[in-house]
Amino acid sequence: MFTDTFKALSDPTRREILEILKKYGRMSAGEISEKFETTGATISHHLSILKKADLISDVREGKFIYYEINLSLFEEVINWINGFLGGKNDEK
Amino acid sequence: MFTDTFKALSDPTRREILEILKKYGRMSAGEISEKFETTGATISHHLSILKKADLISDVREGKFIYYEINLSLFEEVINWINGFLGGKNDEK
Repeated sequence: MFTDTFKALSDPTRREILEILKKYGRMSAGEISEKFETTGATISHHLSILKKADLISDVREGKFIYYEINLSLFEEVINWINGFLGGKNDEK
Repeated sequence: MFTDTFKALSDPTRREILEILKKYGRMSAGEISEKFETTGATISHHLSILKKADLISDVREGKFIYYEINLSLFEEVINWINGFLGGKNDEK
């Protein structure tokens, strides 16, 4: 179930986009691109992968589209990892 | 820093290997392979990716090699994700 999630998280630019959206809140693709030296097309591509993985959502306001971080999958990943950490002293 | 981690986690067989190692503790490659319908070579390949990502460790006992889950990176991933979840109501 987490295949797309972890693929999306495996790119450093995409992780940085998530960190920027966390820090600044809702932003347009143009505003996000300004934080990077790469092209807007590259950022758009990363945004589409993050959106497909459900790690960000887009929100329409009139003719503008904004992106915001979607935290529900992060909570599911934490729960999955906690399954590993939970009984970590069982074997010792 | 998490590029290899998330790449390793993006494959369902590798996630299942981690779950098996969590459940059964230290295992040889052969014992792990028995849990899957795929070839031993495929499992060895997945084990090498997990090891390169530091998600598992190998332990030599005489002429045998066993694999065990390495939880320290999971704790780092949890800390990274908690950075997103921590102030999640700030923007609302």
